Amino acid sequence: MRFLAFVLMLFSSAAGAQGVTRGTGDLGLIIERAQGSIQIIETTNRTVLGRVDGLGDLSHASAVYARDGRYAFIFGRDGGLSKIDLLEQRMVNRVVQSGNSIGGAISQDGSLVAVSNYKPGGVKVFSAASLELIANIPAQASDGSGLSKVVGLVDAPGQRFIFSLYDAGEIWIADFSKGPKFTLTKHSSIGELPYDGLITDDGRYYIAGLFGEDGMAMLDLWQPEKGVRRILDNYGRGEEKLPVYKMPHLEGWARAGDVIFLPAVGRHEVLMVEPGSWREVGRIAVHGQPIFAVARPDGRQVWVNFAHPRNDTVQVVDVPSRKIIHEFKPGKAVLHLEFTPRGEQVWISVRDADRVDVYDTETFALLKSLPAQKPSGIFLTARANRIGL
Amino acid sequence: MRFLAFVLMLFSSAAGAQGVTRGTGDLGLIIERAQGSIQIIETTNRTVLGRVDGLGDLSHASAVYARDGRYAFIFGRDGGLSKIDLLEQRMVNRVVQSGNSIGGAISQDGSLVAVSNYKPGGVKVFSAASLELIANIPAQASDGSGLSKVVGLVDAPGQRFIFSLYDAGEIWIADFSKGPKFTLTKHSSIGELPYDGLITDDGRYYIAGLFGEDGMAMLDLWQPEKGVRRILDNYGRGEEKLPVYKMPHLEGWARAGDVIFLPAVGRHEVLMVEPGSWREVGRIAVHGQPIFAVARPDGRQVWVNFAHPRNDTVQVVDVPSRKIIHEFKPGKAVLHLEFTPRGEQVWISVRDADRVDVYDTETFALLKSLPAQKPSGIFLTARANRIGL
Repeated sequence: MRFLAFVLMLFSSAAGAQGVTRGTGDLGLIIERAQGSIQIIETTNRTVLGRVDGLGDLSHASAVYARDGRYAFIFGRDGGLSKIDLLEQRMVNRVVQSGNSIGGAISQDGSLVAVSNYKPGGVKVFSAASLELIANIPAQASDGSGLSKVVGLVDAPGQRFIFSLYDAGEIWIADFSKGPKFTLTKHSSIGELPYDGLITDDGRYYIAGLFGEDGMAMLDLWQPEKGVRRILDNYGRGEEKLPVYKMPHLEGWARAGDVIFLPAVGRHEVLMVEPGSWREVGRIAVHGQPIFAVARPDGRQVWVNFAHPRNDTVQVVDVPSRKIIHEFKPGKAVLHLEFTPRGEQVWISVRDADRVDVYDTETFALLKSLPAQKPSGIFLTARANRIGL
Repeated sequence: MRFLAFVLMLFSSAAGAQGVTRGTGDLGLIIERAQGSIQIIETTNRTVLGRVDGLGDLSHASAVYARDGRYAFIFGRDGGLSKIDLLEQRMVNRVVQSGNSIGGAISQDGSLVAVSNYKPGGVKVFSAASLELIANIPAQASDGSGLSKVVGLVDAPGQRFIFSLYDAGEIWIADFSKGPKFTLTKHSSIGELPYDGLITDDGRYYIAGLFGEDGMAMLDLWQPEKGVRRILDNYGRGEEKLPVYKMPHLEGWARAGDVIFLPAVGRHEVLMVEPGSWREVGRIAVHGQPIFAVARPDGRQVWVNFAHPRNDTVQVVDVPSRKIIHEFKPGKAVLHLEFTPRGEQVWISVRDADRVDVYDTETFALLKSLPAQKPSGIFLTARANRIGL
């Protein structure tokens, strides 16, 4: 019987090694910020597949995906970079790479993961396969004032990472197209205190918001020789220094039709801007100070959430008429909205209700409510296929 | 020992059932038109994973993907609709649903697969899960002239399929948003002999090319009450009736920056058109009669292939300068080009060389050559996340 026990052990280990045969195109994850875990979800039947714990401090956490859609890289506030296998529902690797970090990006070819750090200020670049350190880029201000916090880190075509130096007021481009021996291009005096950045969905325009003054800093990556230009002089807190409950998320910018919709700073407005000329072409009055203004993938609608104390509400703007066609209150602390890639569903995290709600974007019907512990960001694997996400 | 044999049998069947644990985000397939097979490939290491045979006549075949990226639906010329499991590398289902078909589409929510048929003319809609017939839409011409061939079938937001009736000169919209009981909207007298159609990447504009006259038929799905309008009066074969070796593929239209690039009919030119106004804003002289003009996903380049007898060449247009910056000859009969979703690679099928070549789109270096039997279309799973693909 000992032989039989051995055979059975082999059998059970084979069963344990049995793989998880499923596609990854409809997977995603929900950040559970308070308890340092994620939920793995799928959008076809709208169910939770599992949970992975032990990711550290996930306040303000974000995620990017490997090109195969199987692995997610989670950037925690505590400097933790965790690599998660969505199929096997486990953490495959984790490094604590700084004392305080604020997001990251994955290179165009999927081989490099970059993290932007507050402390010590700079960017670290890791192998996506092994999380081995490939490059360390301390953000030494050009004026000799020391290390700067890094914000607004994005990927760009040509195996580049673009990011902003908060204290130093600079925009840097790290080019890894020749391998780990990267080249750095620095643009200084771009404006005071860039607090976040975004890149347009075509990877052409990098834009940083400024906390220290009005206007934004724009770099056209198709014409880098023109340098950083100032755009949207009226964008910001204004001369009266409006009380701002929370600065909007710039990566929430929405391109819909031929217009970019962006959350105003401090004002109850969404601004409409024409890309290229960067002229403001209109404003839409909304319920509160907007945080995210996200376009449905077909660009027909823009969904908006708001800062505290008006963060229980979501409004939907119809793009051609520029009117609010729907408003509803999912619950207290609506933190994030994520569309399925073809736009038929939107997933909304309602932190204080410990719930993620899924809505039909055409009928506005509630399709599903899923319990989640203090949910914040929601990230679907379709991001793996997008520039700058 | 019979008991042991039984245990071992269990063991081996468990091993046989061992799954295929891998992401599907970097997978794709290559149509091998002559032998009715596909190759399954991955773009991370650029390798062939396997082959699936028995798909019938794959001349002019195309494919769409399930939302999970695991299953492909292949539309064969012989009316065969085959469902392929890319992970297990096998055909899971196949129906021969007409005598002669010409492509298909998958609904926004992924639940319905539609096929456009020449014979008998119409559209059939199947369950993506089971390939069970859900709806049969015979293309009866509004003027009573009988069944029409159907071309230019695409998906649109709102669970709709749009298609053109070749013989009847009509554009129809089948709306499945209320379930299998679809509604049909018909636009007649749209022009003579629509031979192909496309939908813009935002799902807003459906455009049909006309074989019987110059110009194109355009339907703005955001303003369907305006009906079908004629645009680009000079687009077509012209009054001199140029010899046309092969009509261009309209789904090859490329949106890059604020301009759509489209292959001219019969002329050695790529046209530049402004979406919305649909004015022609320029022309670029190219090597031959263009077949596909495909934008790199960041819109910085447009890659063009050509009709026989100039089909051994590929040209690359730089979008901002509108100049050809690269030309090369992969070999005889370059049939298709497919970019990886973030644009760092392009996969090119060279039919008569029995080869698929992979190029770096920034350096133009050849990264890999893979043997393939008379390859034609190349389809990556990232299409699952796009409107109209």
